[in-house]
Amino acid sequence: MCRVKVASFGMSIDGFSAGPRQSLEDPLGVGGTSLMAWLFPTQTFQQAHGDGGGESGIDDDFAARGFANVGAWILGRNMFGPVRGPWPDDSWKGWWGEEPPYHVPVFVLTHHRREPLVMQGDTTFRFVTDGIHDALDAAKKAAGNRDVRIGGGAGTVRQYLQAGLVDEVHLALSPTLLGQGEALLAGIDLTALGFKCTEHVTSRHAMHVVLSK
Amino acid sequence: MCRVKVASFGMSIDGFSAGPRQSLEDPLGVGGTSLMAWLFPTQTFQQAHGDGGGESGIDDDFAARGFANVGAWILGRNMFGPVRGPWPDDSWKGWWGEEPPYHVPVFVLTHHRREPLVMQGDTTFRFVTDGIHDALDAAKKAAGNRDVRIGGGAGTVRQYLQAGLVDEVHLALSPTLLGQGEALLAGIDLTALGFKCTEHVTSRHAMHVVLSK
Repeated sequence: MCRVKVASFGMSIDGFSAGPRQSLEDPLGVGGTSLMAWLFPTQTFQQAHGDGGGESGIDDDFAARGFANVGAWILGRNMFGPVRGPWPDDSWKGWWGEEPPYHVPVFVLTHHRREPLVMQGDTTFRFVTDGIHDALDAAKKAAGNRDVRIGGGAGTVRQYLQAGLVDEVHLALSPTLLGQGEALLAGIDLTALGFKCTEHVTSRHAMHVVLSK
Repeated sequence: MCRVKVASFGMSIDGFSAGPRQSLEDPLGVGGTSLMAWLFPTQTFQQAHGDGGGESGIDDDFAARGFANVGAWILGRNMFGPVRGPWPDDSWKGWWGEEPPYHVPVFVLTHHRREPLVMQGDTTFRFVTDGIHDALDAAKKAAGNRDVRIGGGAGTVRQYLQAGLVDEVHLALSPTLLGQGEALLAGIDLTALGFKCTEHVTSRHAMHVVLSK
């Protein structure tokens, strides 16, 4: 059965999943990379983006689990890149270089039409202009029996949560303060939406919690 | 030097430090006791409120540290009790029975005058009607060289944080969802106030973080 999940999503002590002022230099906003301090040393991250080494353990188990059985992704426009408004041209191809770490279809929410972008390693970015429900329908179709992962950013996760469309959320609560940024859960009543904390494991770097229905 | 601290303060994944609808049956609001699941088994809690047994370890270390070197406490009206408005009589003496666990002067913020209340074990409740600054001045005078602990609830901690009067905050991030309640940090820019996360230790029950300037 296709499940819709959020995974490996960092959140600061003060509830932010990105810092303020996202830019080319600060894809996660100012201070936002501290949310991912648990992820960077993992095997899963290092094999996708680094030198191929990396650490095993609790953090890596969660990182790997986030990629397991995923048949399609959905990303918000800002998670795809810093470009705002109509696409000036096709030069922006995401933050991840020629071979993005997805290896499945990725649906990007945007208000501005753009042709699909075929990347190396079986990642295709498809741009969806008809809203979150259409994007989810398309992603589910692409995923088949596998899961759909909502990749972020915070605004996109919030929209899918509020619409009651998410089955499982894995958050990595990071021991860091951002002060400002994008609050992930503010104003969302997860209890009313049917979520419970069904799992929690702490590593040296983060408290991992799984919220599910 | 007298420091002003918040300690052993529980916070849920969704940022609440109390559930909704506080009452005699639910002193921490509906669901709020789950924030304290880390505290109840500790030696520190059991020796004050239970059978004198209890567990040592990370959680107990933090619970004990919260009481160390404290010369005075400040409590909000709702932390003292469920009575609202003018005191109908002197029958409400706090949630804690004849011998409260403070053993030092405790300053209770209220809009309604009331005579001091002397309890067993050196706890005296003093009712302060002139606001948070006056209460802190009085508490510092009473504490001498020892620290002042802001006991809560969430609204009182928020007021002292926003006024820039707190030196250290220990939060126990609990793997629980409340959905609604009193958000502890929403709208408070702790980074701008000068706080950093200076310590974090995880136990089976909680991620303990210390924020200080």
